[in-house]
Amino acid sequence: MSGTKPRVLVIGCGFGGLETVRALSKAEVEITLVDRTNHHLFQPLLYQVATAGLSAPAVSAPIRHTLRREMKRGNLTILQAEVTGIDAGARQVTLDGRETLDYDHLIVAAGATHSYFGHDDWAVHAPGLKTLADAFNLRARVIGAFERAERCTDAAQREPWMTFVVIGAGPTGVEMAGTMAEIAQHTLPQEFRRIDSRRTRVVLLEGSERVLGTFVPSLSARAREQLTKLGVDVRTGCKVTAIDADGVSYESRDGDATRTQRLPSKTVIWAAGVAGSPLGRSLAASTGAALDRAGRVVVEPDLSLAGHPEIAVIGDLAAAKSYGTGEPKPVPGVSPGAKQMGRVAAANLLRRLRGDATRPFHYVDYGSLATIGRKAAVVDLTVPGLGALRFAGYFAWLFWLFAHIYFLIGFRNRLIVMIDWAWAYWTYERNARVVAEPAAVLTNEAAATLGRPPATPP
Amino acid sequence: MSGTKPRVLVIGCGFGGLETVRALSKAEVEITLVDRTNHHLFQPLLYQVATAGLSAPAVSAPIRHTLRREMKRGNLTILQAEVTGIDAGARQVTLDGRETLDYDHLIVAAGATHSYFGHDDWAVHAPGLKTLADAFNLRARVIGAFERAERCTDAAQREPWMTFVVIGAGPTGVEMAGTMAEIAQHTLPQEFRRIDSRRTRVVLLEGSERVLGTFVPSLSARAREQLTKLGVDVRTGCKVTAIDADGVSYESRDGDATRTQRLPSKTVIWAAGVAGSPLGRSLAASTGAALDRAGRVVVEPDLSLAGHPEIAVIGDLAAAKSYGTGEPKPVPGVSPGAKQMGRVAAANLLRRLRGDATRPFHYVDYGSLATIGRKAAVVDLTVPGLGALRFAGYFAWLFWLFAHIYFLIGFRNRLIVMIDWAWAYWTYERNARVVAEPAAVLTNEAAATLGRPPATPP
Repeated sequence: MSGTKPRVLVIGCGFGGLETVRALSKAEVEITLVDRTNHHLFQPLLYQVATAGLSAPAVSAPIRHTLRREMKRGNLTILQAEVTGIDAGARQVTLDGRETLDYDHLIVAAGATHSYFGHDDWAVHAPGLKTLADAFNLRARVIGAFERAERCTDAAQREPWMTFVVIGAGPTGVEMAGTMAEIAQHTLPQEFRRIDSRRTRVVLLEGSERVLGTFVPSLSARAREQLTKLGVDVRTGCKVTAIDADGVSYESRDGDATRTQRLPSKTVIWAAGVAGSPLGRSLAASTGAALDRAGRVVVEPDLSLAGHPEIAVIGDLAAAKSYGTGEPKPVPGVSPGAKQMGRVAAANLLRRLRGDATRPFHYVDYGSLATIGRKAAVVDLTVPGLGALRFAGYFAWLFWLFAHIYFLIGFRNRLIVMIDWAWAYWTYERNARVVAEPAAVLTNEAAATLGRPPATPP
Repeated sequence: MSGTKPRVLVIGCGFGGLETVRALSKAEVEITLVDRTNHHLFQPLLYQVATAGLSAPAVSAPIRHTLRREMKRGNLTILQAEVTGIDAGARQVTLDGRETLDYDHLIVAAGATHSYFGHDDWAVHAPGLKTLADAFNLRARVIGAFERAERCTDAAQREPWMTFVVIGAGPTGVEMAGTMAEIAQHTLPQEFRRIDSRRTRVVLLEGSERVLGTFVPSLSARAREQLTKLGVDVRTGCKVTAIDADGVSYESRDGDATRTQRLPSKTVIWAAGVAGSPLGRSLAASTGAALDRAGRVVVEPDLSLAGHPEIAVIGDLAAAKSYGTGEPKPVPGVSPGAKQMGRVAAANLLRRLRGDATRPFHYVDYGSLATIGRKAAVVDLTVPGLGALRFAGYFAWLFWLFAHIYFLIGFRNRLIVMIDWAWAYWTYERNARVVAEPAAVLTNEAAATLGRPPATPP
């Protein structure tokens, strides 16, 4: 087999997979990239598709187009398929339950899905936001809720349709809640006859005591202020106990006692927990690797698996640590983390091929950003040499805007997003509101009436 | 009931319904507009969404936004619902099978769907193109076919995935076939490793002897030339006899004999026959109105129904005639026809309210346009005072381009389309190629393997 290039299989073309392929492209390897979809998704802006602020082409790009330069080098094959099993012993994966694909080296960047903390039955009532399909589904449900409210002749019937609950006050939940409050207050008011969209309730439920818990307390407080100013009803210290087609039940502490409350709502959005892709379990079964509580695969310092140096796991599927001075620190599940892991996994693979020692992963944390609405955001940066730089409000929002445009993949996407946002800014219009599906498939209730299958759970 | 404004119910917000609402907006009437979807669709450009040349927001707009000025006048209610039955005797419609809505006057603009000439089982294998949902489905299938072809290691297995059949050589079929040939020749070649997309076959099957049969023979011939130059295999005189998951069978005349041929293809697109919306049958049952062979409702010269002057049917659902000098002529199912009928139906309704006589419908035919590819189109205009103006080729294409941009609803849509088209023109890129659904739901075959429900029939 001398002369045959090593076969590297990369699973997933999110931030991690994409960086890996780009970093390996010029090396003497034969790369196969497999993804279930045909596109690379800029996940940080996915909530904008869900809230009709941006169209799908603004936050995604066909993967074949994104990797066209790498394709020209002649050592990359892209296949759209779902990896249904991994056999580490045979160095083989199964595609769509029937085809096999051999590899010499494997990099698994399959990402994360949602965790419902053991209550998987909540998924159909409280969809999450991880993929474009999720975003379309959520958008249809949010828009559909206002349309259903308009159909009601009875005020009592109308209220659950005009109550939106977002569960989980991390960046995604905060962004969703803030944006939905804006839509209700500014975009929709003139457009309905019977309902007054300004009477919409957006409730943000969070189990811990702070919103944006991973930010410093001062920024959490600023974010909470901004949300409240936008009209979001922020309820911290509230743990969800039940979700069904008609609403949410949650527990909150009242002095020493625990109170259970009920929130009738037809549109509940899950932004609370993530879990590693099911491929994590396949890997664990096949390699003996451990999974953490969130189903992420525990990796060695160099991102490989114990006993399987030819396999690396990166991105949201990996429970990785950052090694530097001091104690190893967990790596947050954010895009820069996935990208850095992709580059390091690729570099380590090439070192292994050369017979060199691999290096441990060191995460460079540039900081965090979260936006709350049209003119509000919080920024927590770590600037080398300067230290921490924290600010909130309008300037933070401008920073957030330009940072996201900068990191978008591709000039065209940047152009579209800038145009879409400029338009929306000046007009408050949300023209990404068009929903392809007719009314009957928007809600499970309507679907049941007409005998059609309900919207599929994420 | 004196002082109560007459209640006008308009069903459908396509070209016909939209014009009707706009024409009635300033009158002393209470208008309710009902549509299954939340958007107005610019159908002439729908094929561009299906072939990934434009994104959905470019060819559609939320109806509430489009009618915002009319909403301000305070006499318009828009409801998103499906009209499931019409009871002309009670002057009532049923929404979603359970709610009723009363009216004094009814204008039905529910449009058309596809006719499979009695072979409804063909629908799941050969989807048509009437709605945005259809366009997304087709786009996913076309893109998915290339992805499936790339997965094949066997050339024989690959061929049906790289053979696309369009049935029906009217404007939609011609536009689809021409565009798909372009994608295969220009957009995709560098992006695949195993397949050579230039070896794609696009076959256009037409039962009659000409493409664009409603145009004059000289323009039909020019269109056929342009299609062939683009690489489309045009087969006229071919009548489809069977369609299944693996391809199409058709009959053609060979001298005096009839030959049956088989075309293996995994992607068959139906552009051959239209039928009136099923609401036509509801109307016929309720009013005794006649339906023509295509399920369209036969209307009086003033667009109302015999015996029911309070009901008018317009647009693609109406079998209307144009009255002027000479014999009444059938009205073609095109956008200008629907718009003119909308305006006349509204005017006649107001005449009836005033006690005046209604007027018969006269269709002003400005001509026809059809585009074939990036730089080719045929134009057949009737210019008042000048007569017929016919041309084809590059200049016709520029005319087609600007005419469509002109008629798009809304400045924003025009801006997006111009940008999208300018980009695509310069780069041959088709960034509307992102498909939300993962691989497993793209084709019925893959769906069966994974136990998921197949893509729903149109």
